[in-house]
Amino acid sequence: MSNTFGRILRLTTFGESHGPAIGGVLDGFPAGVFIDFNRIRYQLSRRRPGQSAVTTARNEVDEPEFLSGIFEGKSTGAPIAFLIRNADKRSADYESLRQVFRPGHADETYTAKYGHRDHRGGGRSSARETANWVLAGALAAHLLPQVEVLAYTSQIGDVRLPEDAAFSPEDVDKYSTRMPHVAASTSAEKLITDLKEQGESVGGKVAVRVTGLPAGLGEPIFDKLHARLAHAMMTINATRAFEIGSGTRAASMRGSEHNDMPDDNQTFATNHSGGVLGGISTGRELTFEVTFKPTASIAKEQKALDTEGHVVDLAIPGRHDPCVVPRAVPVVEALTWLVLADFYLLNRIHTLY
Amino acid sequence: MSNTFGRILRLTTFGESHGPAIGGVLDGFPAGVFIDFNRIRYQLSRRRPGQSAVTTARNEVDEPEFLSGIFEGKSTGAPIAFLIRNADKRSADYESLRQVFRPGHADETYTAKYGHRDHRGGGRSSARETANWVLAGALAAHLLPQVEVLAYTSQIGDVRLPEDAAFSPEDVDKYSTRMPHVAASTSAEKLITDLKEQGESVGGKVAVRVTGLPAGLGEPIFDKLHARLAHAMMTINATRAFEIGSGTRAASMRGSEHNDMPDDNQTFATNHSGGVLGGISTGRELTFEVTFKPTASIAKEQKALDTEGHVVDLAIPGRHDPCVVPRAVPVVEALTWLVLADFYLLNRIHTLY
Amino acid sequence: MSNTFGRILRLTTFGESHGPAIGGVLDGFPAGVFIDFNRIRYQLSRRRPGQSAVTTARNEVDEPEFLSGIFEGKSTGAPIAFLIRNADKRSADYESLRQVFRPGHADETYTAKYGHRDHRGGGRSSARETANWVLAGALAAHLLPQVEVLAYTSQIGDVRLPEDAAFSPEDVDKYSTRMPHVAASTSAEKLITDLKEQGESVGGKVAVRVTGLPAGLGEPIFDKLHARLAHAMMTINATRAFEIGSGTRAASMRGSEHNDMPDDNQTFATNHSGGVLGGISTGRELTFEVTFKPTASIAKEQKALDTEGHVVDLAIPGRHDPCVVPRAVPVVEALTWLVLADFYLLNRIHTLY
Amino acid sequence: MSNTFGRILRLTTFGESHGPAIGGVLDGFPAGVFIDFNRIRYQLSRRRPGQSAVTTARNEVDEPEFLSGIFEGKSTGAPIAFLIRNADKRSADYESLRQVFRPGHADETYTAKYGHRDHRGGGRSSARETANWVLAGALAAHLLPQVEVLAYTSQIGDVRLPEDAAFSPEDVDKYSTRMPHVAASTSAEKLITDLKEQGESVGGKVAVRVTGLPAGLGEPIFDKLHARLAHAMMTINATRAFEIGSGTRAASMRGSEHNDMPDDNQTFATNHSGGVLGGISTGRELTFEVTFKPTASIAKEQKALDTEGHVVDLAIPGRHDPCVVPRAVPVVEALTWLVLADFYLLNRIHTLY
Repeated sequence: MSNTFGRILRLTTFGESHGPAIGGVLDGFPAGVFIDFNRIRYQLSRRRPGQSAVTTARNEVDEPEFLSGIFEGKSTGAPIAFLIRNADKRSADYESLRQVFRPGHADETYTAKYGHRDHRGGGRSSARETANWVLAGALAAHLLPQVEVLAYTSQIGDVRLPEDAAFSPEDVDKYSTRMPHVAASTSAEKLITDLKEQGESVGGKVAVRVTGLPAGLGEPIFDKLHARLAHAMMTINATRAFEIGSGTRAASMRGSEHNDMPDDNQTFATNHSGGVLGGISTGRELTFEVTFKPTASIAKEQKALDTEGHVVDLAIPGRHDPCVVPRAVPVVEALTWLVLADFYLLNRIHTLY
Repeated sequence: MSNTFGRILRLTTFGESHGPAIGGVLDGFPAGVFIDFNRIRYQLSRRRPGQSAVTTARNEVDEPEFLSGIFEGKSTGAPIAFLIRNADKRSADYESLRQVFRPGHADETYTAKYGHRDHRGGGRSSARETANWVLAGALAAHLLPQVEVLAYTSQIGDVRLPEDAAFSPEDVDKYSTRMPHVAASTSAEKLITDLKEQGESVGGKVAVRVTGLPAGLGEPIFDKLHARLAHAMMTINATRAFEIGSGTRAASMRGSEHNDMPDDNQTFATNHSGGVLGGISTGRELTFEVTFKPTASIAKEQKALDTEGHVVDLAIPGRHDPCVVPRAVPVVEALTWLVLADFYLLNRIHTLY
Repeated sequence: MSNTFGRILRLTTFGESHGPAIGGVLDGFPAGVFIDFNRIRYQLSRRRPGQSAVTTARNEVDEPEFLSGIFEGKSTGAPIAFLIRNADKRSADYESLRQVFRPGHADETYTAKYGHRDHRGGGRSSARETANWVLAGALAAHLLPQVEVLAYTSQIGDVRLPEDAAFSPEDVDKYSTRMPHVAASTSAEKLITDLKEQGESVGGKVAVRVTGLPAGLGEPIFDKLHARLAHAMMTINATRAFEIGSGTRAASMRGSEHNDMPDDNQTFATNHSGGVLGGISTGRELTFEVTFKPTASIAKEQKALDTEGHVVDLAIPGRHDPCVVPRAVPVVEALTWLVLADFYLLNRIHTLY
Repeated sequence: MSNTFGRILRLTTFGESHGPAIGGVLDGFPAGVFIDFNRIRYQLSRRRPGQSAVTTARNEVDEPEFLSGIFEGKSTGAPIAFLIRNADKRSADYESLRQVFRPGHADETYTAKYGHRDHRGGGRSSARETANWVLAGALAAHLLPQVEVLAYTSQIGDVRLPEDAAFSPEDVDKYSTRMPHVAASTSAEKLITDLKEQGESVGGKVAVRVTGLPAGLGEPIFDKLHARLAHAMMTINATRAFEIGSGTRAASMRGSEHNDMPDDNQTFATNHSGGVLGGISTGRELTFEVTFKPTASIAKEQKALDTEGHVVDLAIPGRHDPCVVPRAVPVVEALTWLVLADFYLLNRIHTLY
């Protein structure tokens, strides 16, 4: 019942993994903005399966059709509706799953909630939905031309991007893992391909750095900037944790160590706040990190419940990523854009004179 | 602009730390529920400052006044409004802070957003607001009599509650730290009192276990149960991270290890999902953990910016908790109740027949 | 920015008159409902242009495509998305209007608001949008099988349906005017065809009677049943007035005359309340009436402003209804269904035990 | 469950007629606005009972207490909460009504919806609530200093304000009826006082003219300016009809007559649109009219149902206006301000550059 996200810039989405199409309606997009369709297609291609050895072989062209809200290249202020047809469906792959609840999937909970479900590829709960978000996020990014959102893989399994890794935004996509460091990415890629052979999967983390964000974004009390980011990130399939700034490390820290203090040049040596104080952006770098669990669909045999409550043996057919993290990078980025653009529009209301 | 929380059970709050009162309006509360005022007062007393050596000395009686929505002891279906007067204000303590942005506080961001601010005790950004949530959460708890929400301190500084600690819900409040384990709590208490003497503060974590929750709560796509919980927890002052189930540990795990699988008795040995699959409750235990940063207000001298952009020396006057975690326990619990009750009411709509 | 209607059953729509398609997403529709596609097509055919001498000649097949939310004939609880392609567009007809603000149309106000507009057939402001509502309303009607909504033409120009006209629901569509009375409809039809020849148009009214509605629908204070109905009706293109029960006649009445009182059989001889007291349904018949202005697009020459602020002569090309009322009947009915179904779902929350 | 009004400027209210207090929270009010408390008190005094021979004798001082959101005379951007204590309650007057459903009142519908009710003075359904709106409307008016909202009585019973009546805004309150015309007001006042003696009541109308409104306010598709005004007006107790511009008269008009056309000086001789086209303000005068039914509470004996379903004789005790219209004038005005200010804030989002 909650297929709408945002307060001013509102994205409503629909579509099942194996239905005729997925799509969405982006309402509240201001008028008069020239739309860069190449930017949108580029972001969709980043999320697309089948990009490398570390991703699923399902192949979706993901060519969006725009149905409204854009006239002669510019947004009109009317809602922008878009459609992405589901081309490469193999629903028959899923017929054997009609009566089984796959471990780690929403099969059992959708059935508990709705009484029945579309079992083909997870139906509405499929990560196919994230293509809608990537498209909408690319639209939202048009509204904040001065802001840069940089998302990248910071961990896969136990392989962690070194703290002191130096890279530019352009570097991220040069690595199949999107972990921008030669040695680390090589280790991670080897880990993934090894696990794939074993019918296994692995988790990881995506980190985000936002620069150029103005101070003052975020709404007290119940729509704090990091609360909305947390909400957005927990919306992504397979996420397990959200950390702003210092994150879980803050539990062990002292106040004098954690507080970001200015030096004599009015600059701040640390950014434990992650760019948010009291739920409102400071105007300094915004930083957060998101943890993903290992892909639930694995080829390895598992125990599962069927719809009758019996325990059955299950080896999941179909094509699945052994690690969702590399393809999650543009998804994290897209939802970040949606949150930031929404707050940006909302912020134009606050001071009248 | 976002002082309302919830979709069906909607809490709207108001009030500044040093204004005449704080309070709220809880709308959408069903009719015909007998209100247990002692339960509400008890929860408020758990959050109240001045309870022990580990908390601030500010003393608020926190006797709520109910203004509407309850008639002859029962809810009427009309909004329940309540008021908590601010009794023990010492606004003069804050006069010296009018021109200074305290490190780790919302002073600079409120000023950036609104052009000016109520500098007395943080104004609207003060954790005084959490008393409203505790009251509203205690009301929400009336709607789920079969559910038990157990929150407790799981970490303070580097002192961690042992994984195998055995305790009952009643045990939690027997410890000044709310960490229900004799040795751990003693260590943690010593840490806090030592830091207090040094004018320092420390962070920590609160863990939550919910039992008795029905399957089917949570709304795909954009109001997943754990997304709303994350949102709620990041709303609490000083939180830095939200982890559902396996949390950040999931990054290093394998799929076959992380997936919760039934054994031959149809029970599950693990609960890495934390009781949520696809954003919907499984009906098994719901578990999550929240990280808090060290209290930003410390007596120790710090560097800070003033409203003119100069760097000044600052030692914060006033009365502050050296560790917010013990008093945060009932706050975490209250917001959990608000989220669960909202989803519970929403869930009554889904299947018609 | 407000292309969503409803609180629980939420319709989000999109599309311009001469864009590739119009469509919508209906969220909050409960799971497990068998969808009667013939009922939907039948309602769309009732709204369709080109039905008779009294309507426009534009011909739209209006065959909807369903994209999601329905699986094996039943609703799944996921959002139901639908699309209606725009087939018979003649955008070239509108090229001459690019620089002119048609009197009585939204041309000038959309330009004032958004800086530019899609001038082809009114773009987003076109009554083409109402096809979306008719489709969604037909879906909503599935949720209230025990309720009957009867809408009919009660006035066209000065021709008024006699107060004592007797007719069944099936009778309405037997009349090209949808005014279910032989003499009155004949007069009204003659009036319309005469005006058409003159390049003129005329206004009228649609009346609604709802039976079988349970008591208790409607939400105090700010979502009263008749307030939401008024909101919905004023959403329809060309509406000028909403009257509940006694309507404008109430201004001249006395209290003892207006109050509906029970007779000795506990039945009510009058229904001046229109079936609503305090914004909540009484369970007795719901009655209201909606006034439509004459079609703004007329062939007769008019004065108009152009985008430069000059006054120009204008004779509007294209195909237009001389009276919108007959085709508005299914639109009024559809929005009534959407309002009632939304309140019906909302009402399931109010009493817990 | 719907005690909140507005999208950006959001008013949440609470309180029962005979509870300790009524009040509200106005969220989304921009920071930095100096509050004119005298203006607020003045508007409350205009709504206050006991002003003249034509109104009820209940006497409420209606001195509001402001609890938050204003600091050193200026709005802070935090929610503005206010309280109005119920001073002159005579709940005992209502004891006899505990088991009776007063005709024309919400007694039966609240009971049907909620299972029980606060029977004292209508509880939440009482027009006492409108004091909250008047206060909030006076705050909202601060946001549109260049706009003038003029509301006045246009009809009482069959006494109608002449079409050509000339009057200034200051004139309205010089008449006890708020019908600004000597002869008409005298007739209306005599009608009311005669009816009062008979234990009777009478209906009437309030008209509104808004000048100084910018073009572009109102949100397609589902938040049209006149749809929101209709919604707001139907929210007021005892309203029966809403008419924008030409209103119900449009039913009989021709297109060439109804369309507002510019003359050679680019001005418009007519304003049948009422200042709204396609749901968006034209920037010309906004005009609408609201019909009120006769006061439901009359001293004259009536038949009524009791809670057991029996028909009983009823003469309503207590103090009631024989005609609500004069006191409704500031209420209509207040809700108009709330609607306009909300759209004004919302409108700041639409064009980015």
